[in-house]
Amino acid sequence: MDHYDVVFSADRHRQAMRSLPTLLAHADVVIDLSADFRLRDPLIYEKYYGVPHEATELLSTFVTGLPERYREQLSTANRISVPGCMATAGILAIAPLREAGVLVGEVTVDARTGSSGSGASVGNRNTHAERAGAMRVFAPLTHRHEAEIRQETALVTRMTATGVEAVRGVQVLCRVGLADGVDERTVRAIYHRRYEHEPFVRVVARNRGLYRFPEPKILSGSNFCDVGFAVDEPARTGVLVAALDNLVKGGAGNAVQCMNIRFGLPESNGLEFTGLHPN
Amino acid sequence: MDHYDVVFSADRHRQAMRSLPTLLAHADVVIDLSADFRLRDPLIYEKYYGVPHEATELLSTFVTGLPERYREQLSTANRISVPGCMATAGILAIAPLREAGVLVGEVTVDARTGSSGSGASVGNRNTHAERAGAMRVFAPLTHRHEAEIRQETALVTRMTATGVEAVRGVQVLCRVGLADGVDERTVRAIYHRRYEHEPFVRVVARNRGLYRFPEPKILSGSNFCDVGFAVDEPARTGVLVAALDNLVKGGAGNAVQCMNIRFGLPESNGLEFTGLHPN
Amino acid sequence: MDHYDVVFSADRHRQAMRSLPTLLAHADVVIDLSADFRLRDPLIYEKYYGVPHEATELLSTFVTGLPERYREQLSTANRISVPGCMATAGILAIAPLREAGVLVGEVTVDARTGSSGSGASVGNRNTHAERAGAMRVFAPLTHRHEAEIRQETALVTRMTATGVEAVRGVQVLCRVGLADGVDERTVRAIYHRRYEHEPFVRVVARNRGLYRFPEPKILSGSNFCDVGFAVDEPARTGVLVAALDNLVKGGAGNAVQCMNIRFGLPESNGLEFTGLHPN
Amino acid sequence: MDHYDVVFSADRHRQAMRSLPTLLAHADVVIDLSADFRLRDPLIYEKYYGVPHEATELLSTFVTGLPERYREQLSTANRISVPGCMATAGILAIAPLREAGVLVGEVTVDARTGSSGSGASVGNRNTHAERAGAMRVFAPLTHRHEAEIRQETALVTRMTATGVEAVRGVQVLCRVGLADGVDERTVRAIYHRRYEHEPFVRVVARNRGLYRFPEPKILSGSNFCDVGFAVDEPARTGVLVAALDNLVKGGAGNAVQCMNIRFGLPESNGLEFTGLHPN
Repeated sequence: MDHYDVVFSADRHRQAMRSLPTLLAHADVVIDLSADFRLRDPLIYEKYYGVPHEATELLSTFVTGLPERYREQLSTANRISVPGCMATAGILAIAPLREAGVLVGEVTVDARTGSSGSGASVGNRNTHAERAGAMRVFAPLTHRHEAEIRQETALVTRMTATGVEAVRGVQVLCRVGLADGVDERTVRAIYHRRYEHEPFVRVVARNRGLYRFPEPKILSGSNFCDVGFAVDEPARTGVLVAALDNLVKGGAGNAVQCMNIRFGLPESNGLEFTGLHPN
Repeated sequence: MDHYDVVFSADRHRQAMRSLPTLLAHADVVIDLSADFRLRDPLIYEKYYGVPHEATELLSTFVTGLPERYREQLSTANRISVPGCMATAGILAIAPLREAGVLVGEVTVDARTGSSGSGASVGNRNTHAERAGAMRVFAPLTHRHEAEIRQETALVTRMTATGVEAVRGVQVLCRVGLADGVDERTVRAIYHRRYEHEPFVRVVARNRGLYRFPEPKILSGSNFCDVGFAVDEPARTGVLVAALDNLVKGGAGNAVQCMNIRFGLPESNGLEFTGLHPN
Repeated sequence: MDHYDVVFSADRHRQAMRSLPTLLAHADVVIDLSADFRLRDPLIYEKYYGVPHEATELLSTFVTGLPERYREQLSTANRISVPGCMATAGILAIAPLREAGVLVGEVTVDARTGSSGSGASVGNRNTHAERAGAMRVFAPLTHRHEAEIRQETALVTRMTATGVEAVRGVQVLCRVGLADGVDERTVRAIYHRRYEHEPFVRVVARNRGLYRFPEPKILSGSNFCDVGFAVDEPARTGVLVAALDNLVKGGAGNAVQCMNIRFGLPESNGLEFTGLHPN
Repeated sequence: MDHYDVVFSADRHRQAMRSLPTLLAHADVVIDLSADFRLRDPLIYEKYYGVPHEATELLSTFVTGLPERYREQLSTANRISVPGCMATAGILAIAPLREAGVLVGEVTVDARTGSSGSGASVGNRNTHAERAGAMRVFAPLTHRHEAEIRQETALVTRMTATGVEAVRGVQVLCRVGLADGVDERTVRAIYHRRYEHEPFVRVVARNRGLYRFPEPKILSGSNFCDVGFAVDEPARTGVLVAALDNLVKGGAGNAVQCMNIRFGLPESNGLEFTGLHPN
């Protein structure tokens, strides 16, 4: 095997922890898209993936491939683990409010995903006849990506996931409790402050129009994660909505963004496409 | 105007309360599909519909057109108000557990609906180009049908609604708190006891297969409301899922079922279609 | 193996000619849905299916399961071969004009089909991600069902087939040459005369409205084949359109209709569903 | 009104011929996307659009905005009329064979189009509920774009148009007669010679794989027109298939390409997006 400056690894979950150690010897930088190096705690990994982790010594050597949170570390990281698509959406929606100290209690995340979210595998569940027009609750109580959200936010998170009719696209709808006195203005300000310099996160929460909240329909092919919110101040609750293209910001695009950061390239290189409307 | 044994009224919300009084004089039985006589409390009506109710004296004369809960009253009712599509799904999922005393705390309802849910009105939001592939959070904090669920369950209910890609179909995903010690077996038993003799409610909660939980895809044209659930006993939470065709069990089919009951006809008359698979 | 009054056989093409001979000994009536006994000429079979026919002696013992053309023979037939979905649509559109002697020259048939047309097989071509939104010309020059249309109409027929976005449904658009002086009135009269007593063929050719020509969208689950047409008299050409649900009138429903005829049952038994709108 | 270097005009058909004369005084270059200046013969215009042309003196001053055929004229043209979406696909498929002298007899064009093809107008025909899953033959005998194909190819062309389920995308399937001895090799060579230097036309005609022929599904957002073919040499017929995104190569993208040519810019400026897969 030759030597490479950077290798993108996308082995299957549970396989990557076996194949990656070999790979590491042949590349300066490895960007892994599998789930095997996303969770730092091997016990949490085992709980969610059903098998013991086989390369626990490597876990702490990976930086999470989420530029909005780890840009500085990514600029020198040689091992990068790109988060799951729904995790990315959930984290980008929840973490700013968490860090601002305005969240109270548990968080629920209801995710909806298109058919490409289950990968290119061929099976009965993926046939067009069975998948078209679906509203398939395939994860009613818990989903693996919830572990990543918990890891990043230190919040008790309960997640459901439903397959809906789309090829690309993930949307999460998160319910949060808000501290007393937190209103729409406060939340908007937190998001704007947090994301105003981010090239790929947009705050979308409008009072009018068709696209008032984030929606994957108009994000296909783009590296954006749109984040929105609505606040019920008297009830001290908020609904956070985030959307992205699972194959771009929720996967390969995010990996490219990490690579750009790592190698000092313009961060948007190769990620300029802004989506189509209508689509 | 002639006299009719039964009239189905489907005037627009806020119009029906004006048109219905006249109609009542010409029909023995009126089955109303508008929202105007669903809520018994005129203040709640005003809160959710934005205008004062103009026929408050009639509100108490209506029986809710939900055979699973009001079959006996419906058998002699002359004024029947059919619930909203998402309300029907939500109530049929939540009410049995509520009545069994196993629910604790608030309930959240995340509803997903196809494009026919917004009626036959023509507008920018309904065009195919804008609606295809949508995951449109059009009601992030509250939806009118939540008032009906509250009325039937006396629970604090918070509802969101999202338009997804389908013509027919509604699905609700409800998060509930469960009393200590309530497990999957308990919940299953409650539902089975409650619905075992119901012709149009099926309990769908399987561990295997593609259609583990209720899904509108295979209910198009049928009068079924499928109800399912998953229980996280350690966390004392449950996720309830219900699905129906908004134009049948969530609307006209439910009205026909009410009529059949009222006139002593076989309850399934005209409602025999069981859905298509694949579809 | 026991003895049966009637057996529906739906083995794969090229397999049925092997499995059927055994089956015939155990059933009074066999209704075959495979392609193996549709073509009476074994050489034509070999041309279209790529292998020699292995039960040529049986070919002449089958009656074509097309009630609109073979009702009398079907009433006593013990071996029935149900035509292909696109063939049924094409034959029902073309044959009446052919028999009336108004067609001139060759016929082209452009068929469009939903994803269930390729059966329940699982493969890359059937995944939702690859099949959604497709306009896939999978048969640009010839399709097997063309041989059945040729057999029934004795016309040179050229067929293309394209997969489009739908689960159920087949539509054929046929271009025909018309004899001198044949106008819209003539064609309409021919169809009406031919199909006025048919329970499952409707003539649909309107000047106004959304559903001017046959369309599978509103036929899902029904046993109808809708047939329509448009005539360009100066150009002496006509366009014939037919649509059906490939899993009903284009398959199992047609088989049931044949069985009803064979056993003297009401012809519409089990086939009463008329489709949903909107859907 | 100020003066502009270039103006894109996209008024409605029948309106542009009234609004454009005024506009011409204020812009060096006008690129018109309406249909009003596509047809050079005012009588043909009247036949297809139902009203007399009101600016006949301008008709001859427009150059057809089809770079593959008029690149040289476009480099100096001040009035450019961009062809219709289905016309562009049809012309790019048919014209090379026509010019090579291998076509015989009439041509039929069966076009399939997504919902954005009818523009942004709101109406019953455009609602999601009525348009989803459609196979709607809205032009059974003739379509306006056929006049443009005739103008460019001088062939008798008969066109049908069918709306299918997609937002973006047009596909044409053309049947042509071929001169004696014209085989697949000949046709392939003609296309390759004609398009090898074209930045936005690709020849797609494969024997294997899922995407053997042009398909709009993978062209959304791109400026490509893919052109493919299949030849039945014994029958002396060919089937030509072309696909494009009606809002890009079939509309605004083509207009931008013309502008780039006119102003000496790199021809692909702003048109670099190559489409998404899967989508």
